[in-house]
Amino acid sequence: MEKNGLSFLDKVLELVKEDRAESVPLVQFKNPKELEGILDLDVTEGVNDKRLEQCVRDVLQYSVKTHKATFRNQLFCGTDPYGLAGAWITEACNTSQYTFEVAPVFTLIEQKVLGHILKLFGIPDGDGIFTPGGSIAILYGIVAARYKAFPDIKAKGMRNLPEMIIFTSEDSHYSIKKAAHWLGFGTDSIRIIPTNADGQILVSQLDETIQKEKDLGRYPLIVNGTAGTTVLGAIDDLEGVADVCKKYGVWLHVDACWGGSLMLSPKYKHKLEGIERANSISWNPHKMAGAPLQCSVFMVRDKGLLHEANSAAAQYLFQQDKFYDVSYDTGDKSVQCGRKIDAFKLWMMWKARGDVGLSQLADQTMATAQFCMETVAKRPGFKLVSEVLQCPNVCFWYIPTFMRGKDQDEKWWQIMHKITPKIKELLTLNSQLMVAYSPVRQYKNFFRLAFTFHPKVDKDQVLSMLASIEKCGESVTLAML
Amino acid sequence: MEKNGLSFLDKVLELVKEDRAESVPLVQFKNPKELEGILDLDVTEGVNDKRLEQCVRDVLQYSVKTHKATFRNQLFCGTDPYGLAGAWITEACNTSQYTFEVAPVFTLIEQKVLGHILKLFGIPDGDGIFTPGGSIAILYGIVAARYKAFPDIKAKGMRNLPEMIIFTSEDSHYSIKKAAHWLGFGTDSIRIIPTNADGQILVSQLDETIQKEKDLGRYPLIVNGTAGTTVLGAIDDLEGVADVCKKYGVWLHVDACWGGSLMLSPKYKHKLEGIERANSISWNPHKMAGAPLQCSVFMVRDKGLLHEANSAAAQYLFQQDKFYDVSYDTGDKSVQCGRKIDAFKLWMMWKARGDVGLSQLADQTMATAQFCMETVAKRPGFKLVSEVLQCPNVCFWYIPTFMRGKDQDEKWWQIMHKITPKIKELLTLNSQLMVAYSPVRQYKNFFRLAFTFHPKVDKDQVLSMLASIEKCGESVTLAML
Repeated sequence: MEKNGLSFLDKVLELVKEDRAESVPLVQFKNPKELEGILDLDVTEGVNDKRLEQCVRDVLQYSVKTHKATFRNQLFCGTDPYGLAGAWITEACNTSQYTFEVAPVFTLIEQKVLGHILKLFGIPDGDGIFTPGGSIAILYGIVAARYKAFPDIKAKGMRNLPEMIIFTSEDSHYSIKKAAHWLGFGTDSIRIIPTNADGQILVSQLDETIQKEKDLGRYPLIVNGTAGTTVLGAIDDLEGVADVCKKYGVWLHVDACWGGSLMLSPKYKHKLEGIERANSISWNPHKMAGAPLQCSVFMVRDKGLLHEANSAAAQYLFQQDKFYDVSYDTGDKSVQCGRKIDAFKLWMMWKARGDVGLSQLADQTMATAQFCMETVAKRPGFKLVSEVLQCPNVCFWYIPTFMRGKDQDEKWWQIMHKITPKIKELLTLNSQLMVAYSPVRQYKNFFRLAFTFHPKVDKDQVLSMLASIEKCGESVTLAML
Repeated sequence: MEKNGLSFLDKVLELVKEDRAESVPLVQFKNPKELEGILDLDVTEGVNDKRLEQCVRDVLQYSVKTHKATFRNQLFCGTDPYGLAGAWITEACNTSQYTFEVAPVFTLIEQKVLGHILKLFGIPDGDGIFTPGGSIAILYGIVAARYKAFPDIKAKGMRNLPEMIIFTSEDSHYSIKKAAHWLGFGTDSIRIIPTNADGQILVSQLDETIQKEKDLGRYPLIVNGTAGTTVLGAIDDLEGVADVCKKYGVWLHVDACWGGSLMLSPKYKHKLEGIERANSISWNPHKMAGAPLQCSVFMVRDKGLLHEANSAAAQYLFQQDKFYDVSYDTGDKSVQCGRKIDAFKLWMMWKARGDVGLSQLADQTMATAQFCMETVAKRPGFKLVSEVLQCPNVCFWYIPTFMRGKDQDEKWWQIMHKITPKIKELLTLNSQLMVAYSPVRQYKNFFRLAFTFHPKVDKDQVLSMLASIEKCGESVTLAML
């Protein structure tokens, strides 16, 4: 192969197809040090194509097959193949989503997709932008809220502003903490509102806490409601939260990174009722909906605000004397300069499936989760954390036989806390299933089986996953812990 | 094709190859409204594969061929084909760079590549992270500096801290402004230090300005030195800047997003002497070195600081009771949660070419730029903005014959300011060349020809580009402006 050609791409396609064979295991786990010994990673010396191909084979061999139905370790799984095709095209076109001149088609596609999404979420006159993930989206949300409240912040900073408070539930995503630090509030400016047993924010407590902060002379800036918490999949009572926000004139951001994909389903979108009242929303199609990573949308009700808040009018890039309509140069709305084309892969899968195709995938996902929850509820040894299906998260413990019929006292729970990770370890080492586990509040380590738009995750798969957990669970002994 | 298979990927490869044919024009420019009329972008209804293929053909037809040598519009061009192969593999593997368990190989690859880069930049004991672009990297730099100075910021925010000042040159990148806003400083906290005619920061003015701010009781937090300004390609006197930073104990960040690629060349790395004294550095291999977008590295001298400053210890993701060495879970160093695998594509091209291969590409790029500058210097009608080649940026005006031999007074320059964009328009509409233009300080609109690691950009290409500019330049008339 000549060093400047594209012929290695043929090889890539071949290797990717081989990697997708049914017989390829989900994971061949090696410990870090062991894996370092296996792989040839040094880049000092160049290698020829033959050697490089072998290196890539090794990379693939020890990488996790996140496309398999048995990859349930995160809130993403099994890229939509049209989405993947879109991602490959994006990579080949290698351009940046800042000006129309270098991304004419992608600019229009981003606009079109955003318009469609804004309508879907009930804020058709709003604005939006694709961001590198949900954590950056929450930065956008807080920045927008702060700028709207105190436009002077852009020039003058936070030094002379009142103390601003961020409200979020105890089950919400940790990116709020990172955002509070980065944006200069500090994590002490966050008020963590308790949730009910199923993970939903206690609206009355939110109300009281805001009132209390106002009484103390602080400025309640933003409430982060969650539509799909990371672990339990809880959807806050968005109508209730919106009422409170309206009462106090507080910005409502809805983190729908996980649950937002339910908006694609006419059958399930009612779960997010009230989201159309938000000032800003974040949604990650790269999670439940299967768009390739990263595909994350930030939406804002107030059109023009993104540009007003974020523009810096760089004259080498956003020249006003260009020969076309420069209102199509959207890059100055972003905190980034160069920005990946994240809209196109989503456009590809949407174009291939249409609204109906995506809604069917959403419905199928929820039906599978429902089946899983019902099965877990009645299956011996399994115990649900929450019996309410909100997003397609099913959370439970597996209680091995030797642990059953005993007092579930603190000591018992301490053991269960160790059993869950042990089962996970065995499942991984056996390459049977990769599944998430987590403690939440008072709940000791439990499993989270979260379902995504994956055509192969059906009832049989669910039964097989539960059987795997059962089998590994029964092989756990006290001595192992 | 069945809706869940990968067979559309074969089509993608075929279309991408067709798109790379020599005969395909650089750009077929259409105005936004016109292009909207041509493309079928609505996603409401799903389409079959045959129709989708046609849609993709249209997307490609009207997209800019950024891989062509005649794409000189930005600081990126012509992806390295191995880098592209790496990007495709990354997309197919679709995982996130936060924990070892879901990205075992990519974790080790990021570590290996970062180690190699840190050595190259002279801070082998430092730490680093891949970020979504240079603007986010500067956020990392300022956050790190602020946290190091005032670790309380993380919890307490900026309200009770002294007024902190950010210093940067007038030719530096506009992302500093966006960062100052987002992070809560406000743009008024930036002190813009003048540059010399060639775009380098005036070190003595920097020194005086810091002293003055100290005298006023403000806290000089960070100096942003630039190794490769966006337009002129100026490299600040990094030794001089580092001396000043040392004198006042101020954090030095070097924005080497553009010029950092010269570190790959033993012949040219001396241009960045002093960079090894920085507290933090940003480098975008997706610019000069041809890695696919986005590929951006943030480096920090102080190992452990990234984790200390940014960690939030989410217990659903960074559990401490996992069965492997969790020091390999590097995601909590990041402000992002899910994070794209940006290291692998860079690893691929580095592995294929080795240090020597990349240094040859750097040397060839500089030789081409040198040839371009020398040619422009003596070619009738061309006038250099700066006669010093720092990074491979060559900046100049083309003065059409009818403008020559006249007083270059303000009125004359007003006309030149319009001529440059007009020539650019003609070059684009003729699909001959896409080239950047910009005003900088007192300099009216001029062209920037910036060179990248592109094997096809050689002396002949340079002559042909200059001839295109000449030809379009001569067709400009006063009536057109």
